This record gives sequence, C-alpha cells and structure tokens, in this order.
Amino acid sequence: MRNIRMKIAYDGTRYNGFQTQPGGNTIQDIIESAIETLTGTRTRIIGSGRTDARVHAEGQVFNFHTDSRIAVERWALALNSRLPEDIRVVESAAEVPDAFHSRFSAKRKTYRYSICTGKFHDVFRRNFEFHHPSPKLDVAAMREALRHLQGEHDFTSFTTNHADEKSHVRTIYSAVLKEEEKRLELYLTGNGFLYNMVRIIAGTLIHVGQGKIAPAAIPGMLQGRNRLLAGPTAVAHGLTLINVEYGDAEK
Amino acid sequence: MRNIRMKIAYDGTRYNGFQTQPGGNTIQDIIESAIETLTGTRTRIIGSGRTDARVHAEGQVFNFHTDSRIAVERWALALNSRLPEDIRVVESAAEVPDAFHSRFSAKRKTYRYSICTGKFHDVFRRNFEFHHPSPKLDVAAMREALRHLQGEHDFTSFTTNHADEKSHVRTIYSAVLKEEEKRLELYLTGNGFLYNMVRIIAGTLIHVGQGKIAPAAIPGMLQGRNRLLAGPTAVAHGLTLINVEYGDAEK
Repeated sequence: MRNIRMKIAYDGTRYNGFQTQPGGNTIQDIIESAIETLTGTRTRIIGSGRTDARVHAEGQVFNFHTDSRIAVERWALALNSRLPEDIRVVESAAEVPDAFHSRFSAKRKTYRYSICTGKFHDVFRRNFEFHHPSPKLDVAAMREALRHLQGEHDFTSFTTNHADEKSHVRTIYSAVLKEEEKRLELYLTGNGFLYNMVRIIAGTLIHVGQGKIAPAAIPGMLQGRNRLLAGPTAVAHGLTLINVEYGDAEK
Repeated sequence: MRNIRMKIAYDGTRYNGFQTQPGGNTIQDIIESAIETLTGTRTRIIGSGRTDARVHAEGQVFNFHTDSRIAVERWALALNSRLPEDIRVVESAAEVPDAFHSRFSAKRKTYRYSICTGKFHDVFRRNFEFHHPSPKLDVAAMREALRHLQGEHDFTSFTTNHADEKSHVRTIYSAVLKEEEKRLELYLTGNGFLYNMVRIIAGTLIHVGQGKIAPAAIPGMLQGRNRLLAGPTAVAHGLTLINVEYGDAEK
C-alpha cells in the first residue's frame, strides 16, 4: 500500500467540521467520496486534526493508504475536479513513508483567529472573521496577555474537552497579534492545541482587550487548571488552520 | 423632502445585479424593502450605476428622497439591522443638496478586476476573482496595452450595449495592474464606464497576457469602434466597484 499525503484549503462555512460524524456533511466525508469516485475504493483519510463546524483551513493536511497506482503528480488535479469549489487541494500530493501519520507526525501547527474591528463588518470576509466593532480593544494589553501564554504550560483552563487527551501540556512557540486599520489577527504556533484551545485563548484575549480581564491574571488562569477561570470560547468562524509542519524526513 | 446619500458594500454572488429587474432578487430591491420596513414608505433609490449579477461593490453609492425624520447618524445602523449580511452600509449616511444625484453627479469611479493566477483557486476568494492558472500571463505586455487605453477615447469597441448612451467617449484617468505572487489586480479609474467596459478591457488584457493580442493592436481596436475587434468579456465575478467620487460640494 502507498501512503499519500495531501494539503487542502477549505471554506468551512457550510460544513459540519472536518471529521466524519453521524450528521454527515463533513470535509472528510466529501474528500473520501471524491477519492472513491477516483479510485473505486472507499478509503479512510487521516487528518492532522479536526476542525469544528464553520472553522476554515488554508493548510490542513491528511494522508491515506491506497493501492491505486495513480501518479502522485496527478492526484491534486484529479481530486480537485471531483471536489466542490469550497474545498481545494492546494499542493501536489506526496508519497510518504508508511509510518507517516498526519496527526501523530505533526510537529507544529499554526492557527489564525481574525477579528474585524471596523464599525461595519466586511461583507467579503464575514464568514472568516469575528466582528467586534466596539469598544475599541486594548491591543497592548492583549499582547501582554499573550506573553504569559507563550511557552510550555498546562492548558487545562483553555480547553473544553478533556476526555481523549492524556496530557494538557502544550508549548506555544509563537503568539503574535497583528494590527491593521480595521482588523486584528492572532497567529498562534505550537506543538499542538487542545480542543477549542485557540478559540478560548481568542475569547480570553478579547475580554482582556475589553478590560474585563487583566493581563496579569493569565498566569493564575493557567495555574488553576479550570475552564471556568478563562474567558469565553470565541465564535468558530473567525478561526483558520493556517499550516501544519512535519519533521524534515517526512516533509 | 430630504435627500439622503449612503455608501454600501455587497457580495454580489447571490443577487441578480444592483438594479431592479423583472426577475427580482436585486440589491436595489433588498435595500428598498429595508428602507420600507424602516420608514413605512416604499422609496425608490438611485444608484451610481448598475452592477451585473455576481459583480461586487466595496463602495457603491445611492441616494433617495424621503420625508422621514430619522437622524442621518442613525440611518446606517438602522438599515444594517434590516439588511442581509452580504449587503452592508459602510459609512454614515449624509444629507445632501436636493440636486445631488448618485449617477449624474458622479465625477470618478474606480473598479477592480481580480485574477487569481495560482495553480489552484483560492477558496476564500473564489467568488471574487477569476481563476486563470495557465499559461502564465505576460504582465509587461498587459501594462503596455493599458497605456494605450488610458486617457480620453471612444470606447465603442469596449462595450456591448449602446442603446442608452449618447456618447461612448470616456476618460480613463488611471489604469494600474498590481502583481502579487498568485494574483493580478487591475484598477481602473475613469470619469465613467460604459456597459461591460471594465470586463471587456479585462478580457482583452487577458488575451494580451496570453499573447493572443499584441499591445500595439489596442489603438486600432479603439479607432475601429466595433465590439468584434476587442477581446472577450471577462467573467462577472472578478469585478468589484471600489469607489465613486463626487465633487467637493457634494462630498
């Protein structure tokens, strides 16, 4: 069996998230159906991680094992011609070692959380950013809060679902808040993110920006290991999975 | 009667264009209905010009005459709360002199035509740009062609509908082709544009970029005053009305 790795982008607006679930209509379902029409065989794909309903991706990665002899350089176009236009393979496929696993082999992930701070929402990005017209967010305070979140921490207070994770310790390598005239973009890069972790960090930062939470309160939130200590979970549609990185050998 | 001027943005994807027409589902219809629910009176709005089905606007302008006493600073939020999220008032309303007419008073308009030149289309902009993955477009040739289009010309060869225009002479003040890694953006600013003029210029430029039309052929196209001489009409969804400018007194 060959192990094929692909990178996709999707506008998650009309899907029930990445991962197959009883309600159907997921990115995974759509891709597995496209692969089936191409190869004639139902094939399970392995994503780098799930994304929730209405969450987007610029660079989600998945892999799958197949007997198909289709050349790697043909996969992207062949699959794209079978996918709806809000899901797109965005790089040539690669044949990877058998041990490569999109989730377990991932070394770093980057997410973006976008906030439109203009008085009126942007019609062209309305499904891709949270609209927060007022009050004006205190960006300096938000950046100070971010500094407390960088590094290795137990992020129990910043996740909502503990069931399937042995450890809540994760490392955030980079946490940057970019400011434009009518937009704030939070970029987080880490070795992994717990369920809802980016959205809870974004929601907490928004409360910091509103003056409801002091930046100095962040260390206590981390130490308390209790979801009730952190801010709200920011709405899903502002979140985009930007990139997943693997070790050089698997790249 | 007061004369109220407003600026709106819209994602034109699901509408049959700006202007009211028998098939309904136009931006104008939606706005007039919103104004009616606000004031209780059916009110005809005057747009700066029509935009076709699937064409977008960042800065379309309209005005209307009303007896309503609603304060100008309340109009934008009041109307936005009654509009679908793909149509948005993006500036505070202004009360303008009775003689102000969004179409006749317009001095300059700017349109953008966007072309995605990446191998795969961008899922987030798929409704806002034309996808042209190959062959690679010759940007230098396209810019040379644009220089021939700048200035005052009879644009008969670059319009498809002559019925309601007395003159086909228009002036293009500025014609700029911006190049990004996977995107070309054509910005045209002029004192007015004939029906389909920007899309025919874009389609002609794409043929120039493909080497099908020489830049030096543009002057002959203009002089020939015949639609058959120019290139094809580029697809509607790549077009966005960016801005409409008025004289200082009416601004």
